[in-house]
Amino acid sequence: MKYALILVFAVFVSNAQIQSTSLNLMPWPQNINLTAGTFALSKNFNVNITGNPNARIFIGATNFLRRLDGRTGLFFEQGFLTKVNENPEAALQINCVRNGKVGINEDESYQLEIKSNKIIINATTDLGALHALETLLQMLQNNSTSYYFPTAIITDSPRFTWRGLMIDAARHFQPVAVIKRNLDAMAAVKMNVFHWHLVDDQGWRIEIKKHPKLTKMASDGEYFTQEEIKDIVNYADQRGILVVPEIDVPGHASALLTAYPEIGSKTTNFTNGTSKGKMQSSALTTYSIERNAGIFTPTLDPSNPKTYQLLGEIFDEVCPLFSGNYIHIGGDENEGKDWDSNIKIQEFKKKNKLANNHELQTYFTMRLIPMLKKHNKELMGWEEIMTKNMSKNAIIHSWKGLNEGMSSGGSLIAAAKNGYKTVLSNGYYIDLMQGVADHYLNDPIPKNTVLTAEEKARILGGEATMWSELVTPLNIDSRIWPRTAAIAERLWSNEDVTDLNSLRKRLKMISFRLEELGITHLRNKEVILRNISNNQNTAALEDFSNVCEPLKIYSRNNGGTEYQMYSPFTLFADACTTDAFDAFDFDRAVNNYLENKNIGNQILVTSFFRKWIVMNEDLINLSSNAPLIQPLLPLSNSLKDISEQLLLVIENKQKVNPSLLNNLLEQCNSKKHADVELAVYKSLKKLM
Amino acid sequence: MKYALILVFAVFVSNAQIQSTSLNLMPWPQNINLTAGTFALSKNFNVNITGNPNARIFIGATNFLRRLDGRTGLFFEQGFLTKVNENPEAALQINCVRNGKVGINEDESYQLEIKSNKIIINATTDLGALHALETLLQMLQNNSTSYYFPTAIITDSPRFTWRGLMIDAARHFQPVAVIKRNLDAMAAVKMNVFHWHLVDDQGWRIEIKKHPKLTKMASDGEYFTQEEIKDIVNYADQRGILVVPEIDVPGHASALLTAYPEIGSKTTNFTNGTSKGKMQSSALTTYSIERNAGIFTPTLDPSNPKTYQLLGEIFDEVCPLFSGNYIHIGGDENEGKDWDSNIKIQEFKKKNKLANNHELQTYFTMRLIPMLKKHNKELMGWEEIMTKNMSKNAIIHSWKGLNEGMSSGGSLIAAAKNGYKTVLSNGYYIDLMQGVADHYLNDPIPKNTVLTAEEKARILGGEATMWSELVTPLNIDSRIWPRTAAIAERLWSNEDVTDLNSLRKRLKMISFRLEELGITHLRNKEVILRNISNNQNTAALEDFSNVCEPLKIYSRNNGGTEYQMYSPFTLFADACTTDAFDAFDFDRAVNNYLENKNIGNQILVTSFFRKWIVMNEDLINLSSNAPLIQPLLPLSNSLKDISEQLLLVIENKQKVNPSLLNNLLEQCNSKKHADVELAVYKSLKKLM
Repeated sequence: MKYALILVFAVFVSNAQIQSTSLNLMPWPQNINLTAGTFALSKNFNVNITGNPNARIFIGATNFLRRLDGRTGLFFEQGFLTKVNENPEAALQINCVRNGKVGINEDESYQLEIKSNKIIINATTDLGALHALETLLQMLQNNSTSYYFPTAIITDSPRFTWRGLMIDAARHFQPVAVIKRNLDAMAAVKMNVFHWHLVDDQGWRIEIKKHPKLTKMASDGEYFTQEEIKDIVNYADQRGILVVPEIDVPGHASALLTAYPEIGSKTTNFTNGTSKGKMQSSALTTYSIERNAGIFTPTLDPSNPKTYQLLGEIFDEVCPLFSGNYIHIGGDENEGKDWDSNIKIQEFKKKNKLANNHELQTYFTMRLIPMLKKHNKELMGWEEIMTKNMSKNAIIHSWKGLNEGMSSGGSLIAAAKNGYKTVLSNGYYIDLMQGVADHYLNDPIPKNTVLTAEEKARILGGEATMWSELVTPLNIDSRIWPRTAAIAERLWSNEDVTDLNSLRKRLKMISFRLEELGITHLRNKEVILRNISNNQNTAALEDFSNVCEPLKIYSRNNGGTEYQMYSPFTLFADACTTDAFDAFDFDRAVNNYLENKNIGNQILVTSFFRKWIVMNEDLINLSSNAPLIQPLLPLSNSLKDISEQLLLVIENKQKVNPSLLNNLLEQCNSKKHADVELAVYKSLKKLM
Repeated sequence: MKYALILVFAVFVSNAQIQSTSLNLMPWPQNINLTAGTFALSKNFNVNITGNPNARIFIGATNFLRRLDGRTGLFFEQGFLTKVNENPEAALQINCVRNGKVGINEDESYQLEIKSNKIIINATTDLGALHALETLLQMLQNNSTSYYFPTAIITDSPRFTWRGLMIDAARHFQPVAVIKRNLDAMAAVKMNVFHWHLVDDQGWRIEIKKHPKLTKMASDGEYFTQEEIKDIVNYADQRGILVVPEIDVPGHASALLTAYPEIGSKTTNFTNGTSKGKMQSSALTTYSIERNAGIFTPTLDPSNPKTYQLLGEIFDEVCPLFSGNYIHIGGDENEGKDWDSNIKIQEFKKKNKLANNHELQTYFTMRLIPMLKKHNKELMGWEEIMTKNMSKNAIIHSWKGLNEGMSSGGSLIAAAKNGYKTVLSNGYYIDLMQGVADHYLNDPIPKNTVLTAEEKARILGGEATMWSELVTPLNIDSRIWPRTAAIAERLWSNEDVTDLNSLRKRLKMISFRLEELGITHLRNKEVILRNISNNQNTAALEDFSNVCEPLKIYSRNNGGTEYQMYSPFTLFADACTTDAFDAFDFDRAVNNYLENKNIGNQILVTSFFRKWIVMNEDLINLSSNAPLIQPLLPLSNSLKDISEQLLLVIENKQKVNPSLLNNLLEQCNSKKHADVELAVYKSLKKLM
């Protein structure tokens, strides 16, 4: 009997373990205990809600039903949920103890119990219950004819309380529909902070009723009305997401100063010998909306009382639009050039005993605090605001790292030690087109970090940043997703959840499921390829896009001038993404082949070469009626050339001149064509 | 010399003719005169605007530049156009004599002259100039490396002044993004009226500030705020499009009566012997939002003064939101059942000497006229409003036809003869999923129509109607486009432009180009197929979808109850469209083969059979991990079965039992699977 019991137990454990690794949950829950049964889905599946939840759970549960119905085609009879305990006998019971409030340190935990005839969600707040519904959707399984959930008990809660995504709606405007679909996707991976970068050199994107000049002169007609902002804040709240707006000052001010040049710091250039001080008051500098990418000098004048008057009036309108406690004031990348060359500002510094521009910026930032306090808001800013006199109530947003000559995440740890609450974005710059592994393994608190419990608690979490120099509504989703789901997991799940193979497997399913929420990363790729093909067959372009990646870090838009904000983003680099689909499979095939050169492994490698040779031929044929294919041909030709030679080596055991081979390989390392690079270069090199 | 001249002339004409048929213009212009040269496009292509246009031309010309840049990848240097004569030397010169006003009978004509070094657009109004820019975009040609326009002179103007598209945003809500992208597409094919069906049994979709109950109780939270409506009216105006809102009364009133049951006509059911009259005032009928499709009885009470008070207050808010002169009040499909069973209403009819329900409805409709007049608006309504006392200022919207037991377009001619302005929608019901040819050949004024010039002038044009029982934002575009482009051509171009082969050829390019404007008909098909495939390869599903069409007319949703408004529209029928892509090609192959059974023609036919046999095998394999594929298998299997037998007959000259063959063929005529039908059935039958 003793043995029998042990055997049964072992079978369960083994079953559970097998099933657990086959699940496509993301972020991975804190605890999951699979049992051997199933809950079968049918047309009469329905939902009931009990407790004292916020009304958002009714919308959430209704959306849950529609999504599940869309996937399964079961034609559920239940339409809309509108009140508590409408349906006491329902198969899915959701109980929330109390109304949740979006924002930091709210209870987002949940327990999800799937039994063979009942599913029970228990959560302190409706925010936890919403997370449970997303987990349940991810638990969906099927065989050839039906859908079911495996029975299980999951208990879950987030590791960090700030799991954010920033979207820059300033450099390229991103309209309401883009924001909403991304809020849906954020909720699907349990992210809870939307940081909305609303103004920058390239545009002022928020209606200020007292100052219509801002949008009239500095938005090209593309901005959010206050009604739209309220609508989005409400939409986010329904999905458990806090919205943190950013009004970036005192730098990044070209747009603001286009409307109000009188509060700019720049002095008009005069020829030598003319007294700057005297002339300045009569000659007003003009500014214009910036069309390039980069760091620009236009900066507000911190010595001018009008600056604070205008900002006060702006915050008087901005603050009430947002329900959360934080307003992001930017504060980054002010290089102080216009301050240094402005005599009036130099005099102001002396008078106020401000030793340098850092102190001047702190002076400026401290002046903003009462403007926000008036509306019961605290200040958040990029790490540059962290100077010795900065209020400890401010949240420090850590962003600099190796690209900026700093240690990665260094300011985060420094902020926590200095007594500031802090959020990490260094390592989560998804606009830089780095592979998902880089972001996934970037932990806000690396294992060797020595921090007190108090200091640790100040590290609120992290935030993926989608800067929009190189994206439009057409391609932005493919830069955010699916990589941001990996960042969401980093911020939610246990720090030991770091298996890259598991990540890649699960990401494929998450990526597919994002389409359900309107995310366009897959569908719009095909739109761009059709555009390039000039309405011809896109199969060869698809193949090539699966081994090419857009140039990374800041190399695609060298000097910030190749692409203006109105340049076309409808070309090959815009269809390509990081983590090129075939590159990973090819690399694995190469590794297997190098380990064991049996015929099976050989064929796996050589089939890629054959595919690329045919693909190159197809691209050449297509190009006779598609000028936009021409720029790709040198690179696809290089891939064909090396493929042909490596086929000779591998299949015919034929010797090929090493310097020829090396030369052909290096052609595949070119970054001169179509703003992309071949993602298979390193794997090819292994074969040399 | 005489001969030489004639020869040169002949060459030009011949050149021009060849080129003209190769152009993909739609709607086809009234006059096009191609010459032999080209205008080469380059990075420094730019635009200048002169004259006294409405500001919409600056937005239009800027959008034109962005679209052309997106197609060609030339990185134009010119960013935004903001004022007249900014760029006097520009290659493209646009001159507008005066500010156009959107609406009927405005001048929309233009002349477009493309010379080898200059392009000149002359138009009376900016509305004509916008049309010219769309024509110019359609003129774009390319060789293997570059883009150019053929030199030409085009003079153009519309045949009809009302070229409309109606979108039903009530049955399934269609949010702002859906409306805007369809406005863009309408402008691309020179349509100028957007008819916005805003309320129906299934939802009240427009914010009424004085009556928030309407959206609170009868919209499921899905409606347009007044700010959004103003934004859309402005967006449409910028594109030369008039917005005509529809508040459908007195029928189709379930939503309105859900909020205000006290103005409904229904009397509560009592058991026999109870006095209806007495009880009615104390027992209020309740109504609820309708979830099915069909014609329902809830109808406003025309005898109740409160009805007119509420409608007056609604129109007081609705009218000022729209800049045009017309408000559509519906008036259709009131069957009067609740009027007949209501004693109070019967008494009201007697007292007011209204002989029947038609006269009662006319009484009701006439009461609306002053409500609109107050805001300087005229009334438009579906053909049911045309009764003998109806005001001649009303526009009659003709919709009934063979489906309703009437002659096609009969009410249109009757209205014109009766002195009414009138618009045709019968024959343009794009929701019924009929082939494009049916709509294209449906002329508002058929050739044999005898009308006086005055009567003819009353026929304003036509309108495609997109009723939304079976569409969501995911699939609506694939029901509207590209067929609506053919309707646009019917309404704009000369009545003799009727060549179906030319239409089909041009439609392929128009369909592709619609993606540029955000239309999702192609990309979302792939989303649905990926959903059905459960994230597997979609090639076989794609093939099958190219020979299947959704069930037509009203047969898909029999009785209106198979699909509720919250049913899933993510299944195979939703990925399929009319004019199935491969069906036309297969039919042509069959016709050629039957005409001449040479080996080439034989292979063209048999290659389809082989493809379908493999496809069926692939679908079976996919279905082992995709329950949503199961419902397709019987039909795909039938196609495989007949394909195998016909291969034997055609290739092996083998006799097959005719009754077996016939049996297999009829399996292909089944409408029982997955709400689709095989579009190749008729072509297969030809081979028997």
